[in-house]
Order: sequence, then C-alpha cells, then structure tokens
Amino acid sequence: MVAMKSTVEQGTLISERDLTHFCTAVLEKAGVPPEEAALIVDSLVEADLRGVHSHGVIRFPIYIQRLEAGAFNARPAIKIIRETRTTAVMDGDNGMGQLVCRRAMELAIAKAAEGDPAWVAVRNSNHNGCEAYFAEMAARKDMIGFCFTVGGINHMTPWGGAESMLGNNPFAVALPAGEELPVVLDMACSVAARGKVNVAAARGEAIPEGWCADSEGRPTTDPLAALKGFVLPIAGAKGYALTATIGMLSTMLSGAAFGRDVTHLYDDLERPQNIGHLVGVLPIASFDEVAEYKRRMDKGIREIKSVKKAPGVAEIFLPGEREYRTLGERRKSGIPLAKGTIEELQSMSAKFGVPLRLYAL
Amino acid sequence: MVAMKSTVEQGTLISERDLTHFCTAVLEKAGVPPEEAALIVDSLVEADLRGVHSHGVIRFPIYIQRLEAGAFNARPAIKIIRETRTTAVMDGDNGMGQLVCRRAMELAIAKAAEGDPAWVAVRNSNHNGCEAYFAEMAARKDMIGFCFTVGGINHMTPWGGAESMLGNNPFAVALPAGEELPVVLDMACSVAARGKVNVAAARGEAIPEGWCADSEGRPTTDPLAALKGFVLPIAGAKGYALTATIGMLSTMLSGAAFGRDVTHLYDDLERPQNIGHLVGVLPIASFDEVAEYKRRMDKGIREIKSVKKAPGVAEIFLPGEREYRTLGERRKSGIPLAKGTIEELQSMSAKFGVPLRLYAL
Repeated sequence: MVAMKSTVEQGTLISERDLTHFCTAVLEKAGVPPEEAALIVDSLVEADLRGVHSHGVIRFPIYIQRLEAGAFNARPAIKIIRETRTTAVMDGDNGMGQLVCRRAMELAIAKAAEGDPAWVAVRNSNHNGCEAYFAEMAARKDMIGFCFTVGGINHMTPWGGAESMLGNNPFAVALPAGEELPVVLDMACSVAARGKVNVAAARGEAIPEGWCADSEGRPTTDPLAALKGFVLPIAGAKGYALTATIGMLSTMLSGAAFGRDVTHLYDDLERPQNIGHLVGVLPIASFDEVAEYKRRMDKGIREIKSVKKAPGVAEIFLPGEREYRTLGERRKSGIPLAKGTIEELQSMSAKFGVPLRLYAL
Repeated sequence: MVAMKSTVEQGTLISERDLTHFCTAVLEKAGVPPEEAALIVDSLVEADLRGVHSHGVIRFPIYIQRLEAGAFNARPAIKIIRETRTTAVMDGDNGMGQLVCRRAMELAIAKAAEGDPAWVAVRNSNHNGCEAYFAEMAARKDMIGFCFTVGGINHMTPWGGAESMLGNNPFAVALPAGEELPVVLDMACSVAARGKVNVAAARGEAIPEGWCADSEGRPTTDPLAALKGFVLPIAGAKGYALTATIGMLSTMLSGAAFGRDVTHLYDDLERPQNIGHLVGVLPIASFDEVAEYKRRMDKGIREIKSVKKAPGVAEIFLPGEREYRTLGERRKSGIPLAKGTIEELQSMSAKFGVPLRLYAL
C-alpha cells in the first residue's frame, strides 16, 4: 500500500519489474484490461530503460488523467475499417496510443508474412510514446520498420508563421543487423524539446539562440516568451518541411487530425485527440537472402564504429546504440527517476492503493 | 555548331526547349540511345526549371566525362535480379541514375497497380539528380511516393568522427493533393551544401559556424580547412543519424556501395560507383477514397498557407511549392544559367558540334 522506501531524492531508482508492476496495476485500476495494460506498460517502461524519459512514465500522470476524464478509452474496440491484402486503415477507438500503434504494427507484420511490403494507417489513436518501439517490432521479424506519428501538441508553426499549427512530429526507422545491434533512427523535428525550455524558465536562465520563437514568430532567448511561442524546427525551413510532411503522412490516409484540428494532450481533457500514425514494413527476404543483408549491415556498422575519431571523442555510436546500451545497464541496475516523477507516482500510489517500491542509489 | 548568341554574362538565359535539345543531342553523341537520352534530360532540365541547379545541368560536364571514360554505361541493360509481386531488386548496369531510378519507380508504380504498396531497391546505379522528380512520378498516379538515395561523394563523417564515411544522403516524399499543389519534401542531411563552401573559399570569406569541420573533425569557419574536412549534419547527432539511416535504406537491400566502398563522383573516373536507391509507393485508393484524401490534403495545405505570419513574412510556403512556382515562371521566361555553367556548355557545344542557343535577359 505504501512505498517500501519513500526516499524522494535524485538518485532514487526503481527496478524494471517494480515499475512495470506498478504501472500495470494503476492502469488496471483506471479500467484498462490486464492484458492490454501489460502491453502498454511494456512500451512505457522500455522508454525509461532506454533513457528516453520524455516518452516513459513521465507521461503516466496525464495518461491516467485522460483515462479518468474519459479522454482516453480504457477499453477500446480497435477496428479495421478498410483493408486489402497488404494495407489497412485502423480505427483505434480512442484507445491508448501504445496499444493502438502496436496493433497496427502487428497487423502490418502479419500482412507482410508472405513477403509483401505492408502499410497500416491509423486514426482515433493517442500519444504513443516512443516511435522506435514500434519500428523495432518489425526489425525483430527481419523486416525494415517505419513508424510516423503526428504530435499531440502543436508546439510548432510553419516556417515564417506565428501560429500553432504543427506538432514536433516524430518518426522512426529500424533496420535489423546480424551480430550487431539494429540501427534505429528515432527523431522529432525540433532543435530542442519544450521540456528543456520549462527547465530554463524554472531556473530563470536564458535559452540558447535557435531553440525557440516568441508568440509573434520572432527568435527569442527568453524562456518565458518562448513558452508562449514556438519551438523551432531543425535546420530552419528543412525541419519545417520535414515536420509538415511527417504530419501529413501520419494523418491524411486515415483521416486523423492535422493542423488546427489537433487538440492539446494536456490542456484539453474533453475531446478525443484523433491522433494518427502510419506504420510500414519491408520484409528483407523479398529483396535478398537475409544473411547477405545482415552481413552487409554488420560491415557498414563496423566501418562506422571504427572511423577515425575527432579529438576528445571516445566512441562513435550508431543510431539507437546508446539507447540499447542504457537499456542493458538499467535492466541490471534499475531506472533512475527524477524527483517530480517520483512524487507523481507516489501520489498515484496513494490514490489507487498500489504499492511503489523504490530504492536509493 | 556555334551558339546563336554567345553572351557569357550573369543574366544569360536558355529556354527549356533549347536546353533540352542541347543536352539530349550531347548525350546522344556520347553514346546514349535517343529515347533514353530524352528521359535523362527531362529530369536534369526539370531540376534547373525548379531552381534546384545543384541537380541540373551543372552536373552535365561530369556526366559526359564519366560516359566518355566508361565510368557510366551509356547503353545499360537494366535488369530485375529478384522480384516478388510487390518488390524487386534492380541492377542498373551502371547506367545513368536518372534513367535507372526512373525505371525503378516505373516498376514500383506498375507493381502497385492492384493497390499494393510496392518497393524497389536498386544497385549499380549512379548519381540520379533530383529525388523529388522520382517521388512525384508516384504522386501523379495518386500514390504517395518515396525515394531514398546514397550520395555519390562522402563529404560527411559520423558524429564524433574525422574520416569521410557518409554521403549527404538525400530523400524525397511526395503526397498528391486535390486542387492544391502536391506536397514534396526533398532534402539532404547537411546544414549547407559543399558548393557554398567553394564559393566562400573563392571569395576568401569565412563560412558561418556550424557548416563544416576540418580534417580532424574540429569545427571551423575557414573554408579552405573545411574543404579538406567535412560538411556538418543538420541538428548535430540527429542529422548524422538521419544520413546514416538514409544511406543504409538506399543500399542494404540491394548490395549497393555504402561507407568506405563509395567512390568519388568527380575524382574517380575509373570505377563504377554502384550507387543505390530505394523507391516505394503507397496507392492512396487502398486506404480511402482518393477524393476524400485529396479533400483532407487541400484543407491541411490551405490551413498552413493561411497561418498567422511572423513580422516581415509575405507568404508561407508548403514543401516543394517554391520550386513549382519557379518551374512555372521559367517555363515561360527561360532558365538563367551561371557563367561557369554556360562556359562548360559552350565548350561541349564546340566539342560535340551541337548548337547552344542562349539569349540575354
């Protein structure tokens, strides 16, 4: 009922197993069926294991709030509303994005079983956390996996604009390798996450040039002005073009919300968000012997790892490699959680009567 | 035999038709069959019409040099070496990339005729110019088109590295719209093109911070040091991850060259480059009524166009829109060519006995 150890400090850890049990139990209390709760939590906890905390349990409080407000459907009837042998449109029935996007990728993988590229467009989904998780589902089946998602908050404006219109739309591509780790690109389209602007504002520090614009679209280093404004895209107009394109890929085939129709993940607990995803897979065996492809991947990866280094650089990393390494370490030694996150989890622990087991470093 | 007007000045123009005739005739003199020469030139001239000169006739001299040196195959026997109903691997037989990549996209579109996503991986191709051109072939058939290519010069190094290993790998995504122009993302992964560094070096000017690193991988604003070093990826490690992933997507399914195996488009006229592409299409009608999809695209495009503007901004552009507009203007008024390009075309004109018709602004 109460946390075994309630030390709320930097340096507080939780084990993968305990975090999984806690989150699953809370989701169940919020009405999510046990099997589906386990699937959702697997993705959430994996984000924290990888060190991608922005997609991990830091989002758990808003998820629970939305479940309680009915802004997420705890027991969605996920439906295929149109399909061919190699494509589908899925309606997530306002279920949690981790569940809906997983079902979409499972369907794409199933449709690719005979060697065809298969793509599934999704509507009426929600925030799905870590895109890499879904792309990697394909990589584990010897397929190249793609996952595109429209962001659940319009923090960005078109290049030259001064009005919220675009999300910081993330996407992932996963390529399996042989003996080496898979190569997993997972990126969004802004220079800096908005969370970092919040931190600077709390500390009263200026933010670096190039991170944000104010509400009129003018560059700013004032975090308070930035919070009323926009996060800036990577590489200027290129990043705007990228986020607009990812947003359209994620929504236009299925009729998910785009542009002004995107409501706010945190501020609007009334309406479903109608978040869209597009997932796709390319089965490698249709292009070449899988072993040959993997040999080539391993060779490419090893070449990059062995490249001559710039002064002071200890190691070169492939896309996704740091996250895998962090995951391996945290599986053994536990997941460090920030003070604010722990407090929120403890308050949920008390509210739902679910024990939270923490330990100190 | 001689140019009708040989004014070599800034402000010299050539018509679409005259540039097309000239380039086609020169390619034929260099051994390319007439029908294939016309297809190659269509892509080259369209790049200049769009204002994307880096992918237009500025490349024509090296193409002709490579054809003459046997480093391009003027009469390739392009073969499908493996295929399923919805996938193929194509061997370009060292033909020009504009031709090979077009054949690959034609094949993908044909394989998608019954509504399946179709993807074609290509090896033994060459520099293919403008990626948007191929993605748009799909958009004109009511499909979303993708084109990924590995760059033909390793101007980049992995993040933290100090050794040429990666190209500035470009990719394009094209989404058709209804009454509005298609949305066409076409981008590469570096902050600045290397051509701009050449210009700064010629003028003895410093380059902006963030464009380049020197040969040891250290940031530099000295264009001469930069030319011995590397162009930097957009958004630091993100852009490195993007270019590495695009490079792998473009090569690993087909066995095209990646990493240290990539030879230099300009410096190595001995060996074929074995350039790789990956093209793919998603037929919209398999996901929804095409008219519904197009209505959604038009709505999204109009929302972006009508967004509140930052001070001093006259208009908001969608990805690819400026290029379409430039194309429309240049079809009417002619294509402006830089002095150096004109001189090279004139020297080809003299060498091959093909008239070059220019006119002044």
